[in-house]
Amino acid sequence: MKPLAVHGNLGAKILLVLAVAFGQGIFAQATSENQLTTHKMEIAFLMFEDYETLDVFGPAEIFGRLTDHYRLKFYSIAGGIISNRHGVPIMTEKLGTMNNDPYVLLIPGGMGTRREVNNDEMIRQIKKVAPKSTFVLTVCTGSALLAKTGLLDGKKATSNKRAFSWVETQGQAVSWDERARWQIDGNYYTSSGVSAGMDMALGFLADRHGLAFAKKVAKEIEYH
Amino acid sequence: MKPLAVHGNLGAKILLVLAVAFGQGIFAQATSENQLTTHKMEIAFLMFEDYETLDVFGPAEIFGRLTDHYRLKFYSIAGGIISNRHGVPIMTEKLGTMNNDPYVLLIPGGMGTRREVNNDEMIRQIKKVAPKSTFVLTVCTGSALLAKTGLLDGKKATSNKRAFSWVETQGQAVSWDERARWQIDGNYYTSSGVSAGMDMALGFLADRHGLAFAKKVAKEIEYH
Repeated sequence: MKPLAVHGNLGAKILLVLAVAFGQGIFAQATSENQLTTHKMEIAFLMFEDYETLDVFGPAEIFGRLTDHYRLKFYSIAGGIISNRHGVPIMTEKLGTMNNDPYVLLIPGGMGTRREVNNDEMIRQIKKVAPKSTFVLTVCTGSALLAKTGLLDGKKATSNKRAFSWVETQGQAVSWDERARWQIDGNYYTSSGVSAGMDMALGFLADRHGLAFAKKVAKEIEYH
Repeated sequence: MKPLAVHGNLGAKILLVLAVAFGQGIFAQATSENQLTTHKMEIAFLMFEDYETLDVFGPAEIFGRLTDHYRLKFYSIAGGIISNRHGVPIMTEKLGTMNNDPYVLLIPGGMGTRREVNNDEMIRQIKKVAPKSTFVLTVCTGSALLAKTGLLDGKKATSNKRAFSWVETQGQAVSWDERARWQIDGNYYTSSGVSAGMDMALGFLADRHGLAFAKKVAKEIEYH
């Protein structure tokens, strides 16, 4: 499979490109699923102590408001309240209780990733859930956790530019892109720091639902 | 007191204007407090069911990362988990257990405001806490709740442009501004919808800490 490297928001054109590239693969399947069924696609946020606030809640605003299409779930390894140095306590469910494979697994960044890359249980669980997710999106240093599983090996990816040298060490076989605001390779979306996660989420919507749809969402939240 | 109407981000200049306008008033006091003590200033988020996700967590990212200056607290009338139609469950403390008067009371918007304007206990509590807060910031339709208390009467304020006619009915003596991305009148900051709350929070930082400081924060979160 040839990696597709995409910089910036190319909108609806991407869907066509990917449909051609993947034939009857995951993208075509996802589109057909979207058209044929009315079930809401789960966006599973993988939370850990000292996550970055906006990495989570920027995309949560964007996907969460599309209540006809998506539903959000917040998971952590042990379940319960997960907080961060900002003091934002979010209630999570235990990852092991997940009923369905998620449509999107979203891994945020934050200072906590420095600890979590050495948490064998976290890496094992990501390695288990990510391949069963239709898409995996990482924000900021969340890509370090995904890289640590080996699942990004040989793929193009990006991360927060201010933590880049550290992130690179977590996946030395990854083709790291030091410039992109977000990067796409197959069903893996990786973004740069914090607000870039919102841009990536809007880009993901453009890829899945068309550019006009994504622009409408951006306008609704007055995001410039 | 002559209302100060400010459009957009005028940065550090505002601090000087306000210092002149208020003499030894609240702004001068706040600045001196900031210089003389090392205690962190509490940003109190007033949560209610069906709040808008980014109204809360955009400013939470901006203030929360400034751990040397601010600390976040999340309150609700009854305490406990508060969620919304996006499915974002946040743990809150009971407003009545608040130890100190908050430095900033932040009232988000969201569909829940349509119900909360008729919640006498909510309006009574805002009317009690807001005058004891050094600043009150509202995002989106949060200004409808503040307007309902009467505290905005005769003041300039703004709100989400797509809910404007409804918001206006909640405070007919308020001088509503239909165009501003955010509006300042004395110690009341009111902003337009969702992402505008982040701009207002950055504008607030510029007013309090200087434009360079606010720009540094925006850069750190890659907010364009």
